[in-house]
Amino acid sequence: MKKTLKGYDRQNLKRARSIARFMKKRIINKGEVPGTPILVGEQKVAQCLIHLIDFSPTMLDECKFSSIAEAKPYLDTWSVSWINIDGLHDMDLMNQAGDIFHLHPLTLEDITNTDQRPKMEEYDNYILLILKMLVYNKQNRQIEAEQLSLVIGEHYILSFQEKPGDDFDPVRTRIRKQKGRIRSQGPDYLAYVLLDTVIDNYFYLLEDLGDEIEELETELIEGKSDEMLHKLNYYKRELSYIRKNVHPLKDMVSHLIRPDTELVTDDVKIYLKDLEDLILQVYDAIDVYQELLTDLLTVYHTNISNKLNEIIKVLTIFSVIFIPLTFFAGIYGTNFDYLPELHYKYSYLLFWIFLISVVLLMLHIFKKKKWL
Amino acid sequence: MKKTLKGYDRQNLKRARSIARFMKKRIINKGEVPGTPILVGEQKVAQCLIHLIDFSPTMLDECKFSSIAEAKPYLDTWSVSWINIDGLHDMDLMNQAGDIFHLHPLTLEDITNTDQRPKMEEYDNYILLILKMLVYNKQNRQIEAEQLSLVIGEHYILSFQEKPGDDFDPVRTRIRKQKGRIRSQGPDYLAYVLLDTVIDNYFYLLEDLGDEIEELETELIEGKSDEMLHKLNYYKRELSYIRKNVHPLKDMVSHLIRPDTELVTDDVKIYLKDLEDLILQVYDAIDVYQELLTDLLTVYHTNISNKLNEIIKVLTIFSVIFIPLTFFAGIYGTNFDYLPELHYKYSYLLFWIFLISVVLLMLHIFKKKKWL
Amino acid sequence: MKKTLKGYDRQNLKRARSIARFMKKRIINKGEVPGTPILVGEQKVAQCLIHLIDFSPTMLDECKFSSIAEAKPYLDTWSVSWINIDGLHDMDLMNQAGDIFHLHPLTLEDITNTDQRPKMEEYDNYILLILKMLVYNKQNRQIEAEQLSLVIGEHYILSFQEKPGDDFDPVRTRIRKQKGRIRSQGPDYLAYVLLDTVIDNYFYLLEDLGDEIEELETELIEGKSDEMLHKLNYYKRELSYIRKNVHPLKDMVSHLIRPDTELVTDDVKIYLKDLEDLILQVYDAIDVYQELLTDLLTVYHTNISNKLNEIIKVLTIFSVIFIPLTFFAGIYGTNFDYLPELHYKYSYLLFWIFLISVVLLMLHIFKKKKWL
Amino acid sequence: MKKTLKGYDRQNLKRARSIARFMKKRIINKGEVPGTPILVGEQKVAQCLIHLIDFSPTMLDECKFSSIAEAKPYLDTWSVSWINIDGLHDMDLMNQAGDIFHLHPLTLEDITNTDQRPKMEEYDNYILLILKMLVYNKQNRQIEAEQLSLVIGEHYILSFQEKPGDDFDPVRTRIRKQKGRIRSQGPDYLAYVLLDTVIDNYFYLLEDLGDEIEELETELIEGKSDEMLHKLNYYKRELSYIRKNVHPLKDMVSHLIRPDTELVTDDVKIYLKDLEDLILQVYDAIDVYQELLTDLLTVYHTNISNKLNEIIKVLTIFSVIFIPLTFFAGIYGTNFDYLPELHYKYSYLLFWIFLISVVLLMLHIFKKKKWL
Amino acid sequence: MKKTLKGYDRQNLKRARSIARFMKKRIINKGEVPGTPILVGEQKVAQCLIHLIDFSPTMLDECKFSSIAEAKPYLDTWSVSWINIDGLHDMDLMNQAGDIFHLHPLTLEDITNTDQRPKMEEYDNYILLILKMLVYNKQNRQIEAEQLSLVIGEHYILSFQEKPGDDFDPVRTRIRKQKGRIRSQGPDYLAYVLLDTVIDNYFYLLEDLGDEIEELETELIEGKSDEMLHKLNYYKRELSYIRKNVHPLKDMVSHLIRPDTELVTDDVKIYLKDLEDLILQVYDAIDVYQELLTDLLTVYHTNISNKLNEIIKVLTIFSVIFIPLTFFAGIYGTNFDYLPELHYKYSYLLFWIFLISVVLLMLHIFKKKKWL
Repeated sequence: MKKTLKGYDRQNLKRARSIARFMKKRIINKGEVPGTPILVGEQKVAQCLIHLIDFSPTMLDECKFSSIAEAKPYLDTWSVSWINIDGLHDMDLMNQAGDIFHLHPLTLEDITNTDQRPKMEEYDNYILLILKMLVYNKQNRQIEAEQLSLVIGEHYILSFQEKPGDDFDPVRTRIRKQKGRIRSQGPDYLAYVLLDTVIDNYFYLLEDLGDEIEELETELIEGKSDEMLHKLNYYKRELSYIRKNVHPLKDMVSHLIRPDTELVTDDVKIYLKDLEDLILQVYDAIDVYQELLTDLLTVYHTNISNKLNEIIKVLTIFSVIFIPLTFFAGIYGTNFDYLPELHYKYSYLLFWIFLISVVLLMLHIFKKKKWL
Repeated sequence: MKKTLKGYDRQNLKRARSIARFMKKRIINKGEVPGTPILVGEQKVAQCLIHLIDFSPTMLDECKFSSIAEAKPYLDTWSVSWINIDGLHDMDLMNQAGDIFHLHPLTLEDITNTDQRPKMEEYDNYILLILKMLVYNKQNRQIEAEQLSLVIGEHYILSFQEKPGDDFDPVRTRIRKQKGRIRSQGPDYLAYVLLDTVIDNYFYLLEDLGDEIEELETELIEGKSDEMLHKLNYYKRELSYIRKNVHPLKDMVSHLIRPDTELVTDDVKIYLKDLEDLILQVYDAIDVYQELLTDLLTVYHTNISNKLNEIIKVLTIFSVIFIPLTFFAGIYGTNFDYLPELHYKYSYLLFWIFLISVVLLMLHIFKKKKWL
Repeated sequence: MKKTLKGYDRQNLKRARSIARFMKKRIINKGEVPGTPILVGEQKVAQCLIHLIDFSPTMLDECKFSSIAEAKPYLDTWSVSWINIDGLHDMDLMNQAGDIFHLHPLTLEDITNTDQRPKMEEYDNYILLILKMLVYNKQNRQIEAEQLSLVIGEHYILSFQEKPGDDFDPVRTRIRKQKGRIRSQGPDYLAYVLLDTVIDNYFYLLEDLGDEIEELETELIEGKSDEMLHKLNYYKRELSYIRKNVHPLKDMVSHLIRPDTELVTDDVKIYLKDLEDLILQVYDAIDVYQELLTDLLTVYHTNISNKLNEIIKVLTIFSVIFIPLTFFAGIYGTNFDYLPELHYKYSYLLFWIFLISVVLLMLHIFKKKKWL
Repeated sequence: MKKTLKGYDRQNLKRARSIARFMKKRIINKGEVPGTPILVGEQKVAQCLIHLIDFSPTMLDECKFSSIAEAKPYLDTWSVSWINIDGLHDMDLMNQAGDIFHLHPLTLEDITNTDQRPKMEEYDNYILLILKMLVYNKQNRQIEAEQLSLVIGEHYILSFQEKPGDDFDPVRTRIRKQKGRIRSQGPDYLAYVLLDTVIDNYFYLLEDLGDEIEELETELIEGKSDEMLHKLNYYKRELSYIRKNVHPLKDMVSHLIRPDTELVTDDVKIYLKDLEDLILQVYDAIDVYQELLTDLLTVYHTNISNKLNEIIKVLTIFSVIFIPLTFFAGIYGTNFDYLPELHYKYSYLLFWIFLISVVLLMLHIFKKKKWL
Repeated sequence: MKKTLKGYDRQNLKRARSIARFMKKRIINKGEVPGTPILVGEQKVAQCLIHLIDFSPTMLDECKFSSIAEAKPYLDTWSVSWINIDGLHDMDLMNQAGDIFHLHPLTLEDITNTDQRPKMEEYDNYILLILKMLVYNKQNRQIEAEQLSLVIGEHYILSFQEKPGDDFDPVRTRIRKQKGRIRSQGPDYLAYVLLDTVIDNYFYLLEDLGDEIEELETELIEGKSDEMLHKLNYYKRELSYIRKNVHPLKDMVSHLIRPDTELVTDDVKIYLKDLEDLILQVYDAIDVYQELLTDLLTVYHTNISNKLNEIIKVLTIFSVIFIPLTFFAGIYGTNFDYLPELHYKYSYLLFWIFLISVVLLMLHIFKKKKWL
């Protein structure tokens, strides 16, 4: 057992502490009126950015706003408006958005509280989807999560992210270049495309994590075991963290597919069914790696047992060979007056021959027992 | 194995005994007519305190009573009356309350029996909610539970607590200062706010507990292991105790949300749905810490194995080095008449050189095997 | 490992054998026509006793019969008749009861077969409830089970027990003294009261068992481990036996509460709902003790590991100290002609000083490693 | 570890191989048209035997046929015809039976494929039940399975067995002697009686198996552990094999009880409900023995640990006593010129007294540590 | 612990890497419009092959096409057309097929993405079934999977495979030779036959795997344990891989059996029910082998423990015998002036007799303790 904290250990502790942090954040919300939008989580961007794409099969409009009020005129048209807001700390903006889009106070609270479990809420005039975008930061070997909230209305989609920069640029390109059917579909299809992008990214995450787990396996087979247990536990927790974020997605999508979900057309529901299968594939991949980790833990413990066996085998072989030899040397070290063997000329030579024969016999026996 | 009981051990036993105590309490109830209100549990306050807040959007009335009968006039009005009773030992008061609010005998029995599992019962004219307020007492490292019973009628809410002092003061302040929508809503919303406060407090509890578990992790990684097993088991039981009290809450809230629950308006059901998500988050947090404890147990056992390996390694290194040396010394301690090596001038010097070479060779081998 | 069977071991075997016995009993039933009442189990009383309490809110009649036929006149009245039969071996009596109360042949077979799982059967004109009364016999540390069968008709209740003596005397007193609502209610309420009494007794049983399990914990912490494994396994089986008998009760009561169960009034269903919660509390208590036993098993195995570590530590300390010393003594026991150290005057003294320094150095190192 | 295969080991392997064999049998069916009756399994009887019992409350007819066609006239009557066929290899007979009783091709395939899981299929004019008769062969300690297929029509029952000899003779006697209600009931009641007989036999099987498992327990407590692990694994597999065959029975019987199962009268459904409870009792018995085996496995592993501790204790006691003694002897074997103790008259005596004191002190310490 | 990677280890790593590869494949799909058919997976055949069998009870036509357009005329007839396509890389062909058979874009994507979980999708005019054909490659001990996609229309069946060569030749023969009912049934029956063939093959796969697992068992019982842990883990993963591919089949077939699945006739549903039982049998077989592997893992770990015990026993026996002997030799090697035993004539002889007696006594004790 090393007594210093290095590498994984520190990260280990950091994660554990981050669990506590996740609950500490809640304290600032204490005693607040439910439905008050308060940023729970750290502010990740200096100023909230508003970006709009308004499109129909024949038309495309794109602009950046400094105030959400500027988006209002786009809502009266039949074209699809995708308004993306990066940064959640501007409570005025949030309240304004709440007024313009008739959002329930709880919706605003859910969006700004970045510790939400993924969930789906159906309100009278919109659907709220909350989920996590997960990225693996290879430098500090930590999964970074960013909350994505989607408000799906009849003619618009509102997306909230914690900070600028996302994986949706290919989607934007598809809208701009009229690739695929995205321009001719409503906001439900756009929501599907965004969900699909997020869930696809889970595979990249799992691939990165999986590469490191497989590296661990190679190390274990090669006999390295430095802080192996901490590493295995570390990845176990990371996987369990991912599963906690993927698990509610299945229910979320099933809920969207239900026949009575009005804002989603039957056409898009077929796509969402496909998404459901994709989520099950993510499950499978997590399962595979969790089973792998469990196996590696067994290998690790067997390695420890085998090492013990090996050490004790060395001890036994040396003891079993030399303890009798020492005894025989002791015999001829006794001072008995009458000890005839001592006085023959070849005694010493014969003694050595006898000792070497004993050693060879022992080695032979050990070889037969496959100890050597 | 220490043979004295100290620190955690004693607490350990205390908790275990407290399980037995929990069942001993039932004995006083033995053979009683069901539906007889009897205080099951210890009396925690000298005199029962009755406190009323009566409010409507435009009006607020607050007073303390010595008899529940004084609350009667407030029941006929359309304003919301919140009557809070601290202390459950006054059976006259209980029976009087039962008469005034038309409570079922079983309701009174459930309220005064403080060993109830959290539960929800729907009667003709009111809903009974029973749950636990949990606080972590850092001094004696024990979770303290207090039972909260809520009777939700059409225009009133009755709350029963075991002793004065609670976490509801921010709620009272919100009523007094007309913050949020609480003044314009009915008793169902007030009940939601109280539930929300209780469940929010579970996070503080888990945070405190989590801090101590993470401390354990740091100790384990640093190699300390004093009574570690008892500590790990202790926290495992505490978490399991919390889960037992949180588990039925999910069903309770789901039941309240059902379309056929009449005393809860659709408006409040949206808030309760949000509460359901909060309970799932509590689940997740308990899960995280239970997984952490399981991992720590593995680390603990691996530490024991590693310590054994280390001890045996020391034994083996010393034995493997000195047992052959002793044999060689024994050889030249024999009394053979003809033992030529003994008589050369540099024999003794060569003997030492030989011995030291053997030692160096062994050390080299051990180093190569990474035993040193 | 002791090689004799004492104390727990013998009981252990007895229980195991009692499992086999439970199945051997079935053999006497082999090839019998289904629906033939045959006593499966041992006859526990010399003569069957029949006891009747007939009551209405205004009237009370109590008598003992030698023949079930004497009960017939009480069946035609609207008053509630509780006929209790102790002893199941009189097949004539059983058949007669079957005729008088129009019982299905399978009902008679179920009542006389005392190896039934708890169950509830609804027939056209009555409900059959079968459950176990469990008592902990502290002398031989064994749970004793007695089967209780209740036949609930419209105006009567038939109860069958294996032997005289039960925990229902307080119920009888309540009927006689008109305490509570029992006199003004029907046989369904009486059945509820009897069920409540039986289930309440499970808590006493668990308390007794729990006391002994907690004693085991104290012993384990104090380092005692005599036949500990057998004791832990023993209690594990006892708890598992209780759970097997409690498990079907939840379904039984749920079934009674269903809206379409006709012989139970809505009024009594509220009480049965309360009973359902009580059963869940029994579950919780069993769970708590089972988790405790699992933890104790871990403690036990860790104790064994720790003991091994301690033993090997002693071996290592002695070996590491004395093996080098013996080597040094061996050096000066050699018979080299030229061995200068042997001839100085203070050699022997210096030799001892050297040896003692080595010992002190070793002890210092061990102390630093916390081995001492 | 023994390196020869004896007793249990060989049986162990045989069972494992029998799993493979079970799948090898399927190969002969490869590429066959589904619905073709082919004997999958070994032919267990030289010639198929056909036996008929035709009965009504007032009439009884019994005869043996060489061709199934002879049974035809009995089908037109309203009496109940029970046709039992021993041996499944005569495909002509099977096809003829299929024609006469209008059996679906899949039914014939299912009957002749003796690797079926227990199952129930409802066809237009008959119900097919397939289950296993299990017998414990005490000689070779193996469970022997024989497939029983029941075709329940409106006025007939067809039963197929792999070989002659069964446990149904008491049933036949009851038909002949008009015991019970069997003569006055239809084929559904007869099917119930046959099912009841088969399931009752599972108890005998479990009793036999249980006796041997309890024997293992006694051996383990007495410290014997010859090939214990293989024995425990062996019985674990046997129990798991039984459970696989009992598990689908619950569903089968539940299916028969359903209100829309037409060929079973309500009267018989009451009996089948009783059978359902019996199956649950079989479950419980399997559970009890599986828990017992798990406990025994723990005992076995603890025995190994304890043995290791005991061995190492012996090693430690001897080493700790004799290594210091040898050192002291070594001291006085040195050849220092000036070693005053050597020259006193009582030195040797005092030396022995010193050595013996050391031994006694050590023994005292070991006794206090409870190592002796 | 071996430090080189050989045999299983390398395969082990290869499989693990193949998990990662499975996800790497997804990357090429990144940001693509959903519903675009792209070959996800490796191209396994140079040119796509199209093969058609068109049949009715009275007619049979068979031909190979180079373009899917040539199949068009066959679709207008009422005869059943089975069009099989080997190779999925020709996207023009895929799109053409999509046009001709009116396939949904997602269907095409699903068919060409060979990482699909088995699934069933019902579209307006066809049913899509995707499943895996699994073959065990005994050379490199790896399961090879090939995706089979079936599109079942009203009068046609489209089957897509990754490469030529399959197990459907017996089916083709049955069509050609008019064996069984296949010629007189629709495409739903043909689909059933194909499914039946695929699932039947799982038994062959399991048989092959099972043979190797049983070989492992034999090796373990014989004491061999070379890389046993890696082998056990390897087969565990293979079985888990099979289960992942079999698991969704149960749902798939249940879905096909549902009364509202229109393209499948009631007649064929009876056959599919039989298929459901077959899938359950596959489950059972996987279970059996997984339990076997778990048992083998226990045996493996017990072997390690037993080996340790054996080694330490040898160490203890030698130490316990020779350490006291060495001490006694040491005694008579001391140089006390007055040591009377040294001077008797038979001292040396008596000394040897004493030593041998000690040895014999020890051996006797060890024999009694069953250590020898």
